[in-house]
Amino acid sequence: MRTIIGVMGGGKADPTTTEAARRLGALIAQEGWVLLNGGRNCGVMRASAEGAAGAGGLTVGILPDDDTLAAAPDIDIPIPTGMGDARNVVNVLASRVVIAMQGGVGTVSEVAHALKLGKPVVALAFALHDTAFEPHRSSGRLVDVDTPEQAIAATKRFLAEQAQR
Amino acid sequence: MRTIIGVMGGGKADPTTTEAARRLGALIAQEGWVLLNGGRNCGVMRASAEGAAGAGGLTVGILPDDDTLAAAPDIDIPIPTGMGDARNVVNVLASRVVIAMQGGVGTVSEVAHALKLGKPVVALAFALHDTAFEPHRSSGRLVDVDTPEQAIAATKRFLAEQAQR
Amino acid sequence: MRTIIGVMGGGKADPTTTEAARRLGALIAQEGWVLLNGGRNCGVMRASAEGAAGAGGLTVGILPDDDTLAAAPDIDIPIPTGMGDARNVVNVLASRVVIAMQGGVGTVSEVAHALKLGKPVVALAFALHDTAFEPHRSSGRLVDVDTPEQAIAATKRFLAEQAQR
Amino acid sequence: MRTIIGVMGGGKADPTTTEAARRLGALIAQEGWVLLNGGRNCGVMRASAEGAAGAGGLTVGILPDDDTLAAAPDIDIPIPTGMGDARNVVNVLASRVVIAMQGGVGTVSEVAHALKLGKPVVALAFALHDTAFEPHRSSGRLVDVDTPEQAIAATKRFLAEQAQR
Repeated sequence: MRTIIGVMGGGKADPTTTEAARRLGALIAQEGWVLLNGGRNCGVMRASAEGAAGAGGLTVGILPDDDTLAAAPDIDIPIPTGMGDARNVVNVLASRVVIAMQGGVGTVSEVAHALKLGKPVVALAFALHDTAFEPHRSSGRLVDVDTPEQAIAATKRFLAEQAQR
Repeated sequence: MRTIIGVMGGGKADPTTTEAARRLGALIAQEGWVLLNGGRNCGVMRASAEGAAGAGGLTVGILPDDDTLAAAPDIDIPIPTGMGDARNVVNVLASRVVIAMQGGVGTVSEVAHALKLGKPVVALAFALHDTAFEPHRSSGRLVDVDTPEQAIAATKRFLAEQAQR
Repeated sequence: MRTIIGVMGGGKADPTTTEAARRLGALIAQEGWVLLNGGRNCGVMRASAEGAAGAGGLTVGILPDDDTLAAAPDIDIPIPTGMGDARNVVNVLASRVVIAMQGGVGTVSEVAHALKLGKPVVALAFALHDTAFEPHRSSGRLVDVDTPEQAIAATKRFLAEQAQR
Repeated sequence: MRTIIGVMGGGKADPTTTEAARRLGALIAQEGWVLLNGGRNCGVMRASAEGAAGAGGLTVGILPDDDTLAAAPDIDIPIPTGMGDARNVVNVLASRVVIAMQGGVGTVSEVAHALKLGKPVVALAFALHDTAFEPHRSSGRLVDVDTPEQAIAATKRFLAEQAQR
């Protein structure tokens, strides 16, 4: 069974976020992990898949649509769900660790679902201010990092914890 | 077609929130609206259904479970979905307006889904601090109120806007 | 908690099926049960809702769409799910008993899901020939009837059984 | 983008079906296709994944559960959905062609969903008798074959048709 790491983030992304998503994707691939994201051909989804594919990694995209027309070109395994934003829950359930990058309310929903479902979340240059996140930050299930390299390090710590259980 | 108003909020609720949920449920029923919530027998779900039922209203509960065993006693129409937290998306899609009360990450996910899907949100004594919510607050799709009565007034304004479209 | 009876059947229906759906809807309403169906403005869905509403009953429609634009006019409580045909599972989970009328592969999927999930199914003038249905027919979970009145009688027997558990 | 072929079939399978599922999985892998199934550690799911993995192929399992505990050991990419049988719709949406082997009502639901959603179905030693399937058989979207080798040939014809569109 492969180790699947989820990368969530906005369908719209500024150049800094796009570049970080590409680097994060490459680093995930270099670890031998499978990159999973929302699969669409825009923003953090497209950039992270591009980075992973460029580094020889395998990419999975869980699409809101019922076909693959809107999939990013670097998604190897597109999974159309036909269930719109309800697929956000699948995104986090299928990920061993969720890395959340800058995004809008869609990304916030994914962080919230992940924490609700007991998945560890690494917020990468993504400021999450809601009070509801605080208990998860305190308990160590939500950690904040600034760079893709730090996100990888945090992901490794979470995977090591899971392996001990 | 009946007017369905969603009430979201924590499965755990302090006495102040519980009391406000009960009053909000009653006010929704008095308007002739159908109250919809997550259906479970705890927190804001149980209290808001109790308030609505006590005022003679109709209540719908969209359950995460695949049966009705965990439904609150005042839910008239339980809809088990068997899809866990993915039902949060159904909660907001089925509501003309979403009123969000104090809650945890589950409630945050519902607010985020609602705004993503273009549904108006009334935050009732529920401080939402995330940056991702700001554009929605600025555009008037997310409004903050302090009392159930103010939540009803805000809901009426949103319904009036929808009727004009 | 109200007793919810599901009526499944084709989006396209011949005049005989349409008339039977209308009568079945009326009979369900006369029993004081809530009629639940797929909610769309065509075929068995429209006709059964029309029958129930005409007899003063309450109707719930679980829609595949993410809005209510395609809902039948006699649906009181439309529940848009935004998840396409995956809503067929919700249709059967939310029904105490499923009555299946003439339909295509969509209706067959609903019968199959219902039996898989342990829901009793009354096939009303709907010939189900698949081998996979036989064990359910033998065990009495799938019964075949010819008229709406017989469907109501069979539904009552299933409800009585459920009440004894 | 990899070519994903779905294999559906019973969680319980007799020795003949199990052996055919294993051979089918191997043949799918030898074509360079990704095998997708329902992911669980039983019946056609386990056997087809075993066959594909043994031939060096990649396997994806779309699980009804919210974790990977019940996944078959030869599933490389487990996708827990947490949505029970509603995941059957995802199974067929994610497959370019659906090959259906002997199964119960769950498998029938997958065949029905596939045809409803316009996916071609190859029934491999699986007799489908329902009247609702006939128009799809007549139009060539549902074909019946006896051996895994014939299933592969039929799949190739469907893929060639899709490539021409």
